[in-house]
Amino acid sequence: MVVSSDVCKSLHRSAESKILLMVVDGLGGLPHQQTGLSELEMARIPNLDRLAASGSCGLHTPVVPGMTLGSGAAHLGLFGYDPLKYEIGRGALSALGLGLDFKCGDVAIRLNFCTTDSEGVILDRRAGRISTDKCRQLCELLQRVSISGVELEVVPEQDYRAVAKLRGTGLSDRVTDSDPQITGVPPLPLTALSEEADRTVEVANEFLLQTKKLLENERPSNMVLMRGFGSYPKLPQFSDVYGVRALALAAYPMYLGVAAAMGMDVVATYNDLEAEFSTLEEHFGAYDFAYLHVKPTDSAGEDSDFERKIGLLEEVDAFIPRAEALSPDVLLITGDHSTPAVMGSHSWHPVPFVISGSWTLPMQGTAFSERGCAGGVLGNVNSTFLMTLVLAHAGRLAKFGG
Amino acid sequence: MVVSSDVCKSLHRSAESKILLMVVDGLGGLPHQQTGLSELEMARIPNLDRLAASGSCGLHTPVVPGMTLGSGAAHLGLFGYDPLKYEIGRGALSALGLGLDFKCGDVAIRLNFCTTDSEGVILDRRAGRISTDKCRQLCELLQRVSISGVELEVVPEQDYRAVAKLRGTGLSDRVTDSDPQITGVPPLPLTALSEEADRTVEVANEFLLQTKKLLENERPSNMVLMRGFGSYPKLPQFSDVYGVRALALAAYPMYLGVAAAMGMDVVATYNDLEAEFSTLEEHFGAYDFAYLHVKPTDSAGEDSDFERKIGLLEEVDAFIPRAEALSPDVLLITGDHSTPAVMGSHSWHPVPFVISGSWTLPMQGTAFSERGCAGGVLGNVNSTFLMTLVLAHAGRLAKFGG
Repeated sequence: MVVSSDVCKSLHRSAESKILLMVVDGLGGLPHQQTGLSELEMARIPNLDRLAASGSCGLHTPVVPGMTLGSGAAHLGLFGYDPLKYEIGRGALSALGLGLDFKCGDVAIRLNFCTTDSEGVILDRRAGRISTDKCRQLCELLQRVSISGVELEVVPEQDYRAVAKLRGTGLSDRVTDSDPQITGVPPLPLTALSEEADRTVEVANEFLLQTKKLLENERPSNMVLMRGFGSYPKLPQFSDVYGVRALALAAYPMYLGVAAAMGMDVVATYNDLEAEFSTLEEHFGAYDFAYLHVKPTDSAGEDSDFERKIGLLEEVDAFIPRAEALSPDVLLITGDHSTPAVMGSHSWHPVPFVISGSWTLPMQGTAFSERGCAGGVLGNVNSTFLMTLVLAHAGRLAKFGG
Repeated sequence: MVVSSDVCKSLHRSAESKILLMVVDGLGGLPHQQTGLSELEMARIPNLDRLAASGSCGLHTPVVPGMTLGSGAAHLGLFGYDPLKYEIGRGALSALGLGLDFKCGDVAIRLNFCTTDSEGVILDRRAGRISTDKCRQLCELLQRVSISGVELEVVPEQDYRAVAKLRGTGLSDRVTDSDPQITGVPPLPLTALSEEADRTVEVANEFLLQTKKLLENERPSNMVLMRGFGSYPKLPQFSDVYGVRALALAAYPMYLGVAAAMGMDVVATYNDLEAEFSTLEEHFGAYDFAYLHVKPTDSAGEDSDFERKIGLLEEVDAFIPRAEALSPDVLLITGDHSTPAVMGSHSWHPVPFVISGSWTLPMQGTAFSERGCAGGVLGNVNSTFLMTLVLAHAGRLAKFGG
């Protein structure tokens, strides 16, 4: 935790208050070249603007100014976990993202299907970017690998990417990559970074040996490269740290996986707001804290689809009264990071947020946008402090020191 | 220190400049339900508004966004000391607060008078909230406790609360509480958290044994519970770190105690501004840095007395010309934390500040209030950076790096 978990624990104050956090993925944007206005500034979002004009606003910087975060890292930051400290290995992130049965003690490895020559020298690190369908067939083939004492699952991700999950005793993620990141050389030997990983290196080498035989007649993908060994992330548990019973609602497995690793109860929903809100309405009563994840805004940003992102923001806005109807004591609306449509990718830009509830300090006429919230009373805060801010507004944080 | 004290020390630049810091305790507020205006926004404070319109303004966040700090912790933050690192035990804070002769090597313990049954089971942790007068009588009784090699002082605090100060060789504050925080059970055994505290546990147990006999005929307070063992705080010394000869003026012992622990010269004054300013005028010439503490604003906030807080802010404003007449090179006016009258308690809200002097960057029309200063050029800074900011404005901080 950025604020030490021991300090957080020592400040629990029991309360009946309820907190609702809506994460509009990739919320922040940048001005369109023609209009000079961002997605949020172009969107008609009267409900969000009303909240912004009556709540406490600000921008939050996802952990390090200038650093663009992936979705997993950005969500860790949003919940007060320093993603630079609690790094989740790429394999683990993929396993969580694919919704695998992945738990403490398991190790997940990212696989790239690749092309090698008869001497084992890498000719193409991506095997000509084979299709996801082809990848699925190859994964089924690799499922024949048999290693004593190890339960194996090989699952396609996208294109040439796959994940191998190992389950067994004495496994560790302290293993280097075999992917040399260049062609014209053979794969690197796997190396244990500490003794506890010796067994994992043996297992992974056995996997590679059998894979080579299983794929020897395949073209172009006759081998795999291994990257990002990752074990199930060991995170301080959200309810211990913050003293709230927490629920996560999302459509995509990765978000549910990260929430589950924090110890939240998770409920998978369909990827549409109507379904998400119905599920929220069903469960909100039983929790102190609920987190609702809205994905499509990020996808529209990634697709450089300015208009679609505007439409989706307007759709989110239309659901705000449903959120308010649940009467949360504190309602926090923000994103995990920015995904400006003009960039077509995640970015480092600060993300607008509004805290609605008691004890807020509204600035007259604040609109819910990047530039509107920049004038908010909470200024520009690190995303890792949003949790202490909402707990404070919910009356759930005791005074520190006499 | 938040900026490491070694770095600060390496940047001393000698100057003739003088700095005056006025801490208006609990300065920050929140809007009144009827007017929508905060205490500062309602108050007629032409002098403070004039300073805000010509100086550099901002809000400072007391150390951690969302975290409400006690007075001791907030003052540590204001002077650049991280209160999460330099935590002062409750016993020590009480001893400082009561103005006891408390020094390095001493250990102070918070006592609660309580009621136990004949088996020693706690019936009431507060002995029916006995009066401070009764508490004083009981403390006089406990002053009869005699422990070889230990000098003991037992002093009433408020209601059922008291402080025991131990002086002797080999004492430590690494001892757990005897207060179990619940009734229906006996007090917890005192436990040494490290070997160095073994002697303190012996001494404290002997104190409890004799206390039991001395109080056996008392009702309802026939025993004490011990909490928050604290030794004299070991803090980097203010003058070493910042290179200034520093004076603290306050009416309440706790503020003087914390300032003394930082190594400032301290002068106790009456709790009225006329007396405080007279004392300041008398001593300011001999110091590079003076800190003047104004308490009543916080008390009015704690009492939920919106009108009284406004009146006190106007009174502070009327003394600003007296502060200016001393010709400080830098005048910093702020609070240690917010105490909104609408909450009736300390809060986590950012606190307005103005730095008046050379090299400032005024924003036209800035008023001295929470929302006025939110638009200030210094933005929202952590309170632990105010010291480097004022030293810079005083020309007392050399360039770092080549």
